[in-house]
Amino acid sequence: MATDSFTLTIHMVSSLDGYIAKRDNSIAWFETSCNYEKGIALTDEETAAFLTSIDCYIMGARTYELAVELSKSYGWAYGDKPTIVLSNKPGTAHLPNVEMYSGDLTKLVNERLKPIYKSVWLVGGASVVSDFIRLKLADEVRVSILPIILGDGIPFFNHIDQEQILLLKDVTPHKTGMVELCYEMKKD
Amino acid sequence: MATDSFTLTIHMVSSLDGYIAKRDNSIAWFETSCNYEKGIALTDEETAAFLTSIDCYIMGARTYELAVELSKSYGWAYGDKPTIVLSNKPGTAHLPNVEMYSGDLTKLVNERLKPIYKSVWLVGGASVVSDFIRLKLADEVRVSILPIILGDGIPFFNHIDQEQILLLKDVTPHKTGMVELCYEMKKD
Repeated sequence: MATDSFTLTIHMVSSLDGYIAKRDNSIAWFETSCNYEKGIALTDEETAAFLTSIDCYIMGARTYELAVELSKSYGWAYGDKPTIVLSNKPGTAHLPNVEMYSGDLTKLVNERLKPIYKSVWLVGGASVVSDFIRLKLADEVRVSILPIILGDGIPFFNHIDQEQILLLKDVTPHKTGMVELCYEMKKD
Repeated sequence: MATDSFTLTIHMVSSLDGYIAKRDNSIAWFETSCNYEKGIALTDEETAAFLTSIDCYIMGARTYELAVELSKSYGWAYGDKPTIVLSNKPGTAHLPNVEMYSGDLTKLVNERLKPIYKSVWLVGGASVVSDFIRLKLADEVRVSILPIILGDGIPFFNHIDQEQILLLKDVTPHKTGMVELCYEMKKD
């Protein structure tokens, strides 16, 4: 059963034109050249404390492949948190805290995640995000928009073909020019 | 010659997933169900005063067709301001202050608009926006994000295939849940 304190958050960092990765996977665009005076600046400690509040990550298979690729240069971004990779193909996880999952998503959320976790983050990609929105399994969506138009890349939202009303919960501009938008998914 | 006080602004109102219009052109989604406490609420007078500061509108031919269609139910959205419609096909404007234009865009901006206007707004659609970004003719971009995932529709940004670094200038959340993001185009 769902508890009130369970939240499944869709999270993305995207360009203003909605891309989450460049075709060549380079990530230099995450470094901005802004100094937005009214924005906040988080210390490494504050960021770490925030990340501690996340209990579990979910991602699609291609997002996982990209994360593994990037981990060779920058380290594994999701620490020792339980991470569930959604994949229809059999595959082997590269870390003991990573699990491949190919079953029913509603069951995954209601029977496995809700009983034990408070905060689960779904970090992409587009087709997995679409599935969660269509199945009404997500409680909120957080979009961190970086100050750049990429012009090409991997889009975060694809053609979901279903409307979802949102309720704005929070807007946080950062000194870097990144703007975090947090919305609650309005349940019918 | 450009004067310092000339600003060409790309403006859009979009859903969180980047659509500016639904396939059926219905606009009920502009009415939100949010009441974001930390947001501002503009009076009709304040909105009118702001719109007065815009000297001229530019739009593509399909955006114009949509605006004409919507004007039958809601009135013409751009008042008596000079409005330039970019079109390669010959066409007739429906109002005396609307002009069809099919020539060079850089000439239009530098030779016709800069000498006489201070604030010109480009209001879409995607291919015209791409042209202006590619040609480095836009000075800023303002995106008003409404609290909804539409799932389908007319996208505002298409595949521009060119990066454009932005500088965050302003973030304005509204009580309605709309968030206005204003960026300066970083010139090389």
